[in-house]
Amino acid sequence: MNQPYPSQLLERAVGEFAKLPGIGRKTAMRLVLHLLRQEQSAVEAFGSAITTLKREVKYCKVCHNISDTDTCSICASPNRDASTICVVETIRDVMAVESTQQFRGLYHVLGGVISPMDGIGPSDLQIESLVERVKQGEIKEVILALSSTMEGDTTNFFIFRKLAPFDVKMTVIARGISIGDELQYTDEVTLGRSIVNRTLFTGNM
Amino acid sequence: MNQPYPSQLLERAVGEFAKLPGIGRKTAMRLVLHLLRQEQSAVEAFGSAITTLKREVKYCKVCHNISDTDTCSICASPNRDASTICVVETIRDVMAVESTQQFRGLYHVLGGVISPMDGIGPSDLQIESLVERVKQGEIKEVILALSSTMEGDTTNFFIFRKLAPFDVKMTVIARGISIGDELQYTDEVTLGRSIVNRTLFTGNM
Repeated sequence: MNQPYPSQLLERAVGEFAKLPGIGRKTAMRLVLHLLRQEQSAVEAFGSAITTLKREVKYCKVCHNISDTDTCSICASPNRDASTICVVETIRDVMAVESTQQFRGLYHVLGGVISPMDGIGPSDLQIESLVERVKQGEIKEVILALSSTMEGDTTNFFIFRKLAPFDVKMTVIARGISIGDELQYTDEVTLGRSIVNRTLFTGNM
Repeated sequence: MNQPYPSQLLERAVGEFAKLPGIGRKTAMRLVLHLLRQEQSAVEAFGSAITTLKREVKYCKVCHNISDTDTCSICASPNRDASTICVVETIRDVMAVESTQQFRGLYHVLGGVISPMDGIGPSDLQIESLVERVKQGEIKEVILALSSTMEGDTTNFFIFRKLAPFDVKMTVIARGISIGDELQYTDEVTLGRSIVNRTLFTGNM
């Protein structure tokens, strides 16, 4: 349904919203009309929050996580274990791991995974800077926490080979049955690997 | 899951997006990260499209439809039938009726329907200005095209009484079975009304 827009300003705003992933023209229209009903100041705040973020946001020069400062608050914190690095794909993964409160080390954000199909090679990712960090000799363990996909596995293997010359322990996060999952609905590969990689039962899960 | 944000600029942008209807914090994060990956100019265009719309948009002084000019293109057009007014709730309804290409008259956008539950009374809507338009005597027919809800019906009745003193034909859009609908899945009220309000079969639907 090709609707004629009564206003070019409206059409432009709807068009901009409709460029966002997962937002079609109908949803875009709904969001724009919602904003139109808000106060002028609220709309200005919305617009400026986006443009200011893009203009002023920094990426940590150590771990490449998003940051308001040159070195992010995690890398700068004296309370974190600087001998352990958790390698993740994106800043969302940093936030996901942080929210578990199970990790007190530092991070390294690759910016993606090796994916020849999408034209992403090792040089497009922050792999060299990871090697540099390890080369300095203070890192004792590198935890690979990438997606459990073919691309993630490829990237894991690539990093494994790159770091092989250095005296650093390399681990990968556990793959297995998600907590709360029922065995009968788990795919065979996951189930098979969870049997091969079984851990000693100690009574506390 | 209360995730710690690595950047206040990021948190602010996500917070602004999450204020939009139907957008939670996870979706907001996804949209913001998408925008972060775009060019600076694209993000500025997004921000300015919204703020410019809010700052510069006008509402037609005749029909209250959204417009770039004082009088909207529909009201200003010499090709439209100025003796018929279609009364709708919102500018989206104008676009919906326009897209059917079945109506060549003018519109009147009420800005909602009477809804005591939401604190919306007749004075919050553009009803007086509709009466003024009819009072001028050039309008021959007023088509009520409001939602088929209790609030819509209440508003229909209110407008009906307001316009009763004037020599104007008042009609309401047909309620009935949607085209393509199967009878067995239609609710009883709609089906009942569609039988009561049956029309003469002329061979062309």
